[in-house]
Amino acid sequence: QPHELVTPGEEVNGWGNPMDLFDEPFPDVSTYEDFHTIDWLREKSRDTDRHRKIASRSKESFWEFTKSLLDAWSGWVVMLLIGLLSGTLAGVIDLAVDWMTDLKEGVCLSALWYSHEQCCWTSNETTFDDRDKCPQWQTWSELMTGHAEGAGAYVLNYFLYVLWALFFAFLAVSLVRVFAPYACGSGIPEIKTILSGFIIRGYLGKWTLLIKTVTLVLAVSSGLSLGKEGPLVHVACCCGNLFSSLFSKYSKNEGKRREVLSAAAAAGVSVAFGAPIGGVLFSLEEVSYYFPLKTLWRSFFAALVAAFTLRSINPFGNNRLVLFYVEYHTPWYMAELVPFILLGVFGGVWGALFIRANIAWCRRRKTTRLGRYPVLEVIAVTAITAVVAFPNPYTRRSTSQLISELFNDCGPLDSSRLCDYVNDPNMTRPVDDIPDRPAGPGVYTAIWQLALALIFKIVVTIFTFGIKVPSGLFIPSMQMAYHHHDWIIFKKWCRPGADCVTPGLYAMVGAAACLGGVTRMTVSLVVIMFELTGGLEYIVPLMAAAVTSKWVGDAFGREGIYEAHIQLNGYPFLDTKDEFTHRTLAADVMHPRRGEPPLAVLTQDGTTVEDVEELIKETDYNGFPVVVSRKSERLIGFVQRRDLTLAIKNARQKQEGVVSNSVVYFTEEMPLLPPSCPQPLKLRCILNLSPFTVTDHTPMETVVDIFRKLGLRQCLVTRSGRLLGIITKKDVLRHMAQMMNQDPDSIMFN
Amino acid sequence: QPHELVTPGEEVNGWGNPMDLFDEPFPDVSTYEDFHTIDWLREKSRDTDRHRKIASRSKESFWEFTKSLLDAWSGWVVMLLIGLLSGTLAGVIDLAVDWMTDLKEGVCLSALWYSHEQCCWTSNETTFDDRDKCPQWQTWSELMTGHAEGAGAYVLNYFLYVLWALFFAFLAVSLVRVFAPYACGSGIPEIKTILSGFIIRGYLGKWTLLIKTVTLVLAVSSGLSLGKEGPLVHVACCCGNLFSSLFSKYSKNEGKRREVLSAAAAAGVSVAFGAPIGGVLFSLEEVSYYFPLKTLWRSFFAALVAAFTLRSINPFGNNRLVLFYVEYHTPWYMAELVPFILLGVFGGVWGALFIRANIAWCRRRKTTRLGRYPVLEVIAVTAITAVVAFPNPYTRRSTSQLISELFNDCGPLDSSRLCDYVNDPNMTRPVDDIPDRPAGPGVYTAIWQLALALIFKIVVTIFTFGIKVPSGLFIPSMQMAYHHHDWIIFKKWCRPGADCVTPGLYAMVGAAACLGGVTRMTVSLVVIMFELTGGLEYIVPLMAAAVTSKWVGDAFGREGIYEAHIQLNGYPFLDTKDEFTHRTLAADVMHPRRGEPPLAVLTQDGTTVEDVEELIKETDYNGFPVVVSRKSERLIGFVQRRDLTLAIKNARQKQEGVVSNSVVYFTEEMPLLPPSCPQPLKLRCILNLSPFTVTDHTPMETVVDIFRKLGLRQCLVTRSGRLLGIITKKDVLRHMAQMMNQDPDSIMFN
Repeated sequence: QPHELVTPGEEVNGWGNPMDLFDEPFPDVSTYEDFHTIDWLREKSRDTDRHRKIASRSKESFWEFTKSLLDAWSGWVVMLLIGLLSGTLAGVIDLAVDWMTDLKEGVCLSALWYSHEQCCWTSNETTFDDRDKCPQWQTWSELMTGHAEGAGAYVLNYFLYVLWALFFAFLAVSLVRVFAPYACGSGIPEIKTILSGFIIRGYLGKWTLLIKTVTLVLAVSSGLSLGKEGPLVHVACCCGNLFSSLFSKYSKNEGKRREVLSAAAAAGVSVAFGAPIGGVLFSLEEVSYYFPLKTLWRSFFAALVAAFTLRSINPFGNNRLVLFYVEYHTPWYMAELVPFILLGVFGGVWGALFIRANIAWCRRRKTTRLGRYPVLEVIAVTAITAVVAFPNPYTRRSTSQLISELFNDCGPLDSSRLCDYVNDPNMTRPVDDIPDRPAGPGVYTAIWQLALALIFKIVVTIFTFGIKVPSGLFIPSMQMAYHHHDWIIFKKWCRPGADCVTPGLYAMVGAAACLGGVTRMTVSLVVIMFELTGGLEYIVPLMAAAVTSKWVGDAFGREGIYEAHIQLNGYPFLDTKDEFTHRTLAADVMHPRRGEPPLAVLTQDGTTVEDVEELIKETDYNGFPVVVSRKSERLIGFVQRRDLTLAIKNARQKQEGVVSNSVVYFTEEMPLLPPSCPQPLKLRCILNLSPFTVTDHTPMETVVDIFRKLGLRQCLVTRSGRLLGIITKKDVLRHMAQMMNQDPDSIMFN
Repeated sequence: QPHELVTPGEEVNGWGNPMDLFDEPFPDVSTYEDFHTIDWLREKSRDTDRHRKIASRSKESFWEFTKSLLDAWSGWVVMLLIGLLSGTLAGVIDLAVDWMTDLKEGVCLSALWYSHEQCCWTSNETTFDDRDKCPQWQTWSELMTGHAEGAGAYVLNYFLYVLWALFFAFLAVSLVRVFAPYACGSGIPEIKTILSGFIIRGYLGKWTLLIKTVTLVLAVSSGLSLGKEGPLVHVACCCGNLFSSLFSKYSKNEGKRREVLSAAAAAGVSVAFGAPIGGVLFSLEEVSYYFPLKTLWRSFFAALVAAFTLRSINPFGNNRLVLFYVEYHTPWYMAELVPFILLGVFGGVWGALFIRANIAWCRRRKTTRLGRYPVLEVIAVTAITAVVAFPNPYTRRSTSQLISELFNDCGPLDSSRLCDYVNDPNMTRPVDDIPDRPAGPGVYTAIWQLALALIFKIVVTIFTFGIKVPSGLFIPSMQMAYHHHDWIIFKKWCRPGADCVTPGLYAMVGAAACLGGVTRMTVSLVVIMFELTGGLEYIVPLMAAAVTSKWVGDAFGREGIYEAHIQLNGYPFLDTKDEFTHRTLAADVMHPRRGEPPLAVLTQDGTTVEDVEELIKETDYNGFPVVVSRKSERLIGFVQRRDLTLAIKNARQKQEGVVSNSVVYFTEEMPLLPPSCPQPLKLRCILNLSPFTVTDHTPMETVVDIFRKLGLRQCLVTRSGRLLGIITKKDVLRHMAQMMNQDPDSIMFN
């Protein structure tokens, strides 16, 4: 009698998992191989099985009941841990970046580990004006030569500034190259791909987490034109992966693991901008592929905990969640919508240009010799950035300090040059009336410097995004914006000699427009912007700018920067945003095509063990359809290559009488065999009895829709019940690339 | 030769639409009948066909190109129109409610159409204290007897207050009964059902729009414990339906129409609360079923326009988007999280209780004689509400006025009794230091009155929600909340004799908790609350309360009030939130069951026109599978009953030689028939060649997932290529109800 590999109950769901039966025969065999896509439907089904098992066991004893409760709450526990760790890491990164950025200019004598700002807090002079001049803080020239002013001191400071920047950048790129090559870049394109169901082992590993955190600090401190926001999403996802491996519910199910990662991405954005709701929306709109409502609530919780942890660490010293808290008191007027929409147009154009230029440069890096010298490239970009940045005060300081100054409304006590309005000598007006005063000479100087800074940043960011250090885009592209308010406001808008519009608001709207143009986010962008700045009153301007910039950007090309990088790298990402509108049918896409060898199939009762082993050896397909007979070609199921290999190996080792000549049976009933025949092998338990099928007449748009919504890995094609062929996700992606006149072989896939 | 009904190109997609070929043979035949569900996949496919046709035509001439551009922009145009109209309607409703609510108490002599507040604006005394006493505003007793004070005046005012309330309520319920029965209730359960793909003709019609707008004003003004927020969503959806019928892109495609309705729901919430982003999230989280990212952007735009229009109308006279704008200046402390979470627990318990009690009452109304006298019921509830409400100042005024007072922080000039703190005679402290002063007697009176108001509102709302006038829940359940801050703050929290916590904040958090408990929203709730109040600083408290109340509420029962009402009414709503975890298979759910008559099928070449007509007459199925032959049972396609009826009717009228004996062919090739045979009828063009199939071994959880995600109407069940049965959406819903031990026949369905 054949050995029963499985209890009858196991078979019900059609995907009986033989792994539970062999007592871990081969350690470290995971369900999917590296660079493979997952089958969402199968993962979901496995999770439901797990649930059922736990639910039925929980009635057995109190201990099992407790375990089932723990299992039910493990999702929330993971969220809590992710929130705590990513909040803590974000706080540490913020503090470290502050300190190291200031280290390029000088050092705090009273305590070496204080940043410039912290150093001067401890001093008694607390007004903003004296911030730069507190005695404990010494620039390098002061420390080394005793001179704070003069050409010599300037050159020495300049030289040391560049040297520190180069040192930080070199350290960052070396660490990345030696320890964790996946730690470079913003990580968001890869995370999008992973969340869509692709396996990239190690991309979210512990080493990547550690190295990314360290090199992120170094890269940002080196003054490169990159932000820490995108990488923080990667860091948070690494945390998510780390903690999900603690619970078998998530570690053994790639589908459930992706739910955790979606929530972790939300936590990452939450701490990057202090915008918990924006983070959830970002995860929903931009990053995630499969985002059930349950994940929405979990993400919400993770984002909350992360923001809260960051607030407790309080890296900005203002007890607020947000980095650039601003409070504007001036309302905006209807007519101002025109400049806001113009800012949106600018943002859209800039975004489209940036994407094209950056992709062109990255393609060049990939295809020419340039790509072979990543360290040199980083050093070169850093050197250029540092050399050009130092003379201009707006580029010298850290980007986020600049942004917070630009976003701010001018107050009467502000020493910023942007706020250098001519003081009314009579002082009859109330203090918040500054915008009505005529602009002073400082304002005009500031405008020139800002304009130069803008041009410099535009150019350098194109070359920076994509180099081999952790790099984010958010802050640099937000930075693009501040500069426009100048032209629009001071020149055109108001009556001559008096400036009447809040520049900070224009900076904010401009930032939203530029970010929108680059990333093509809409709702999440607006929410992030107004959570970031506290400017709730300005939803309408922000929305107007964001929608305009998206429209304008889309007119030049529908992809955002992340999709463009996904395509550049050939990741197998089935975008849910693109609509497939071509008139092809499943028959045009399936394999085998006309003239190709026939499909490799198994029959339900006509194959021997040897045949199967040969088939496995000769082909590299992930699975094989099983048909009634080669003549009728009626489909009965689908068997995974991995399961087949394991089952035969196991049967040969443990089951007596199974030899090469044994017939493999996928049928329910076994025929009575004469005793001369070798012992047959019954493998119905590993047969997926509910493979997904479509007919050959199904339009490809429907097939694409099914692949997207159900997250299939493959789909069988039939005509009136006969098996005709198979369509894999790779076939779908290739077909889509072909239809868009792209090289179908550019898609990386196994 | 057989008449070719369709050009070869049409056939490609498998769902050739014969409607385009007959020149509108039967006017007013729409694709789906009333109370049927739509096939999302088919609708999508039809839309892609439309797109292709337009795209290919657009190359022909400049005029066609312009038309294709117009078509591409029509989505945005519809959004613009929806935003404009729903914003305008919301503004008009706000103004009318204000005026009519005040009409119950008195009248403005200087201009009859002014509300109390507007009346006193025009007067010179503008301080808040004098608001109630401006000379132009006369209470009814003043006007009729000349006395403003005294027992007689009080009784007269009381009597007229109740009379007006009854008059408004009677008018409302009569209008609803006579003109638009669908205008009653909040409408959100029905809109959820419609958006999930159900057809309820007239529910979003012009009459409903008109009557709902008018009766909403009447119902709210009558003082019933209901809000205008839910109905505003219904009103906005009616606008959406109205405008989508202007464009054939939307009017002829039920799937596309639902995208417009999702966006309209967002616009509705946007104007109801002045919360555009919250509106989009509400539509996403709570209302919509199919919400692609494109709809997210469109909703965003519609919500923006609607909010903007409302702001231009400026019904609150404060140039702000939001109804209850508050600006708190006190930060909150970590330890305060404890009361916030307690508020969450209270909210969850209250929500669960409310749902149970309200559903029990509504079920009673449905099943007993009570339901036969809706007008009497409304009159009774209104009378009780008005009689009880008048003596208590907190229930007498309109609910939104009360909320705005409760949310407000006490200022030094505030005359509200809640802010009656003992004034420090020395006045040494700065003005914003009020919370540190000891509470005066007015505060304690206010607390008692609020507590009474709370109890009254709890009881009356249970009976109000579901009566036959437009009724919303948001405001009443938000109202539940204010009352708690009293106990928690004044008694426990601070050192005795001094109150140190902002009551308004607690009111806000409590409101969020109660709303969360009733509706089980999370993210959208928090966003609405902080957009509503401008309290961006308090995301964390709001989030904590919302998540807690959801947890607690879910522990008592997983359904929110809307889902509970959907179930009560038996709408065929396939909830995406519930997980199906039972171990049944497709074979257990499909029809025919064991012992039932076999499935009604057509064969591809063996049926005559007469047979088909008989089959149509005898059965009421929506469609029939077509098989190769009755013996092999191999499935080749699925044909819709409607298409079949139309095609045969048309052929009999227009095609010569088609008689009852004609054989119906679904094959590609026609056999050569002897001349003695009657002219055959070729119907392959109406055959759906890509019907959706699953195997009989497919677990039901997968089938449910497929129905949810692809929006199927039916699905065929096969085993090794043979047709076994059919599963319709109704079967799935019935099976789910059965598995949850509910009466499967309670589901309304055709």
